[in-house]
Parts: sequence; C-alpha cells; structure tokens
Amino acid sequence: MKIIGELINASRKVIGTAIENQDREAIQKVASDQFENGADFIDVNAGIFVDKEADHLKWLVSSVQEVVDAPCCIDSPDPQAIEAALSLHKGTAMINSISLEKDRCDALLPIVAGTDLKVVALCMSDEGMPQTVEDRMKIADELVNKLLQKNVLIDNIYVDPLVQPIATKDDFGVEFINAVEEIMTTFEGIHTICGLSNISYGLPERKFLNQTFMTMAIAKGLDAAIVNPLDKRMMANIIAAEALAGKDSFCTNYLKAFRAKKFEF
Amino acid sequence: MKIIGELINASRKVIGTAIENQDREAIQKVASDQFENGADFIDVNAGIFVDKEADHLKWLVSSVQEVVDAPCCIDSPDPQAIEAALSLHKGTAMINSISLEKDRCDALLPIVAGTDLKVVALCMSDEGMPQTVEDRMKIADELVNKLLQKNVLIDNIYVDPLVQPIATKDDFGVEFINAVEEIMTTFEGIHTICGLSNISYGLPERKFLNQTFMTMAIAKGLDAAIVNPLDKRMMANIIAAEALAGKDSFCTNYLKAFRAKKFEF
Repeated sequence: MKIIGELINASRKVIGTAIENQDREAIQKVASDQFENGADFIDVNAGIFVDKEADHLKWLVSSVQEVVDAPCCIDSPDPQAIEAALSLHKGTAMINSISLEKDRCDALLPIVAGTDLKVVALCMSDEGMPQTVEDRMKIADELVNKLLQKNVLIDNIYVDPLVQPIATKDDFGVEFINAVEEIMTTFEGIHTICGLSNISYGLPERKFLNQTFMTMAIAKGLDAAIVNPLDKRMMANIIAAEALAGKDSFCTNYLKAFRAKKFEF
Repeated sequence: MKIIGELINASRKVIGTAIENQDREAIQKVASDQFENGADFIDVNAGIFVDKEADHLKWLVSSVQEVVDAPCCIDSPDPQAIEAALSLHKGTAMINSISLEKDRCDALLPIVAGTDLKVVALCMSDEGMPQTVEDRMKIADELVNKLLQKNVLIDNIYVDPLVQPIATKDDFGVEFINAVEEIMTTFEGIHTICGLSNISYGLPERKFLNQTFMTMAIAKGLDAAIVNPLDKRMMANIIAAEALAGKDSFCTNYLKAFRAKKFEF
C-alpha cells in the first residue's frame, strides 16, 4: 500500500500561512511527521496562490526534500507549476492529477509522456462526474490508453475512481469500490488510489466512516491512498486490512506496528 | 444484514453454569440484551452436555422465546437434539449447521428437506477444511445443490465459507472474502454468513482485527454474521459498512444508531 501524506495543502489554513510566511521549519515539521508515520509520498499543494503557485511549489518541494528522503506528489493541474516543481525534485515524483477533461489532459499528457513519473489518473471528464462503475470504466479505459500510448508504464498509473458522498446517493459508495475492483482486474499491473474523505460528507462521525470505507476499498483491491498519516486509527485500519488481505507476509507489519504501539486499535 | 447473537453458547462458562443450574433468568437476560442490541436470531448451543443436549436445547429455546420475539438459531450437529428443539420453537428457526461431511449431511438433510427452515451450509467436507476459493466453491456447489434438490429455497440457504486464521497462512483472509463474493455472484438470491473470530487467532488486538475483517467481508457481499451484538464497536462497523455498501436507504439506520448513541464510533 502506498501512502500519500495529504497534509501539506495550502487550503489548510496552517499550511497557507506557513507558505505565505515562507516558514520552512513549519512545513518541514509536517513533512517529517508524515514520513515518520508511514507516508511514501508527500503531497504538496499551493493551489490557492494563483499567481505564485509555481514559485510556492518549488519552495515546498525543496523544503520537504531537505528533511525527508521521500518523493513528492505534486498536486496541481497547471503544467507550468508542475514543471517548475519537477525541475528541482529529487527521485521519481507522482503527478496529481491528470483527467479526461480536455484542457487538463492536453496540458499534462506531454509532461508525463515517456517519463517514469507516477501519475494519478482521475476518473473525470468534460461530461462531469461519473456515477456508476460503467461511467468510471469508460473514462478509465480512455485515459489509461492515452497514457499507455504516450509510453507511461502501467505500473506508474494510479487510477482514482473519484469518491462521491453517500449522503447524496445511497450507492455512491458501492459504485466506487466496485469500480476499484473492476479497474484492478481489467488492467493488470495498474494501481488504484483515492482521497476518500468526500464519502462521509454531510454525515456524523466522518472519521469513522472514512476509516470504514478505506477498509472496504482495500478489500476490493485499492493499493494507494491520499490520507493523513497522523490519523493513527486510519493507519491501524490500513495496516490491519492489508494483513487481512494477504498483503503482509507473516503479518510482519501488523505485528511491528503493534509492538511499536504506533497505532490506535 | 442478519445478525445472529452468539452469546448463548454452553462452551462459555457463564452460560454452561446457567444451563446446569437451570437459571432461566440468566439466560433470558442474555437473550434480551442481544435482541435489544440488534440480534435477528438468538443462537442456542448446549453442545458440551453430551447426553442432555436435546433437553437443554428445548429448555434454552423455551426460555429465550418466553422473553424475546425472535427466532432461534439452533446450533447443533445432532438431528435428535435439533428436532427436540424445533418441536417447541415458535416462528422459523435457523439450523446451524449442515456441511458436506457425509454423516452430518445425511443426518440433517431430512430435517430441512421441504421445510422453510433457514440453514447454515458450512463449507466443510470429509476431505477436511477448505483453503482456497476453489475448494470452497466445490463444496458450496455440491452442498447447495443437495439442498435445492430437497426443496430448500435458495433464499433460506446461508453459506459459511469457513474462516481460518491468517496467522496460519497469509492468504486465508483474502481466500475467504473472495469466496464470499464468488458465492454471492454464482448463486443468485443466496446468503453468506460466518462466525469470524478465528481469523485473528494467535494475533494481538483480536477484536480490532475481527471488526476490520467484518467490514471487508461486507464489502464483498456478506449479508449475515454470527457475532456478539453487545460489542458496540463491531455493531458500529457493521452498520457503517452497510451504509457504505448502499444497503441502508438514506443512511437511515446509520443516523438512527448515531442519534441513539447506541454504538461506539
């Protein structure tokens, strides 16, 4: 399971302020905390700073990688900002995200073409948000094929089937997890990923619902997630679900986490 | 989701003692508690009393149904004991369980033949415990067809794919949940059920593992479970997973449970 630490996002007030003040230490603390708690990639997002996004993303990447030996997940739809960030990124970054929306696709396809960058492929098109498994498969099929044609390896593609709130429609949860399963069986060697907090929008006990939904998605094959690695209960769910899904040889990670008292059970 | 309350089992010391002392009040309290916390069936088991199992089962059924308006799940491999219990059972009982082991199958098939009893069909044969999805499907296929031939309705069959501990073999968890999914898609209108605490045998934080595994099994289609309804966290997992699986119209049950502060989130 690949964990993408989601906390360095300018839309969070504490991060927005740290970026404005160029408070490198504050950003580095959040990066280190996430890394130490299991993040494989550190997401960096400066989306609220329209004119300065490129500069801020560069600053975020360099700040993070000064203290953490992990790649970043560059979270932007803007090709200039992404290229700026990539110019000083060490290791293999993840790009979050391409979609089938024409403008976004046309802008980002050249950036990932022929590279070994990892890329989040969001199931969204100009026709709007997908609702059913079929909607998602139609978009995924077209998007994955575009990426393959541009010599992106299947192993570098992370399809995000796009979570929508069950408070809006009863079957938004089941359509999502069934899409995860369908994508994982249709495209051999591909990955699925998501940020799943939207699932619980409008309902009480959102954290608990998010944790439960994560466990269900892992049961269906999800193998990457954009989450808060400091949420100990979420991380416990992930590590337990991985062991139960047969992806933790001799339950080694589970036992290690238990002994280190690292997670809340 | 059908909940079978598992607590009235003679192998639990407090229950064994209550049966020995014919302490009707003690049994009735456990029955009421389970019913009030969501049990659809009350499991009754007197298996440790070899010579008196039939009498004790009758006593358990009458004690339970005196205070609780729910059917029992009669938990015995002995046809005489089951028939004794059925003789005074009100409503439609569940029989737990038939299997493909020849003696057990031959003894129990006549009891359920042509009735509207619900029956747990355990994936076990004289060749031993199944390990893979294929092992389970082979047994399930034969057992379900035997039941159908004896005019048991598919809607009354609850297949138990048989949980085995992941501490023994990494993929025992994933083979189980994949079997749930395969059974639910192969036999339209059938049900799947399990007692799942074996999954965590030999590992720390067993309750948490059991809860997580329940959530994963529900994601794969499990629609009945033999559990402790007084385990508030387990019940919260079940109710949340059901909502996320699109089986709780407008999240009504989830919201009701939240408002009643009935569950631990």
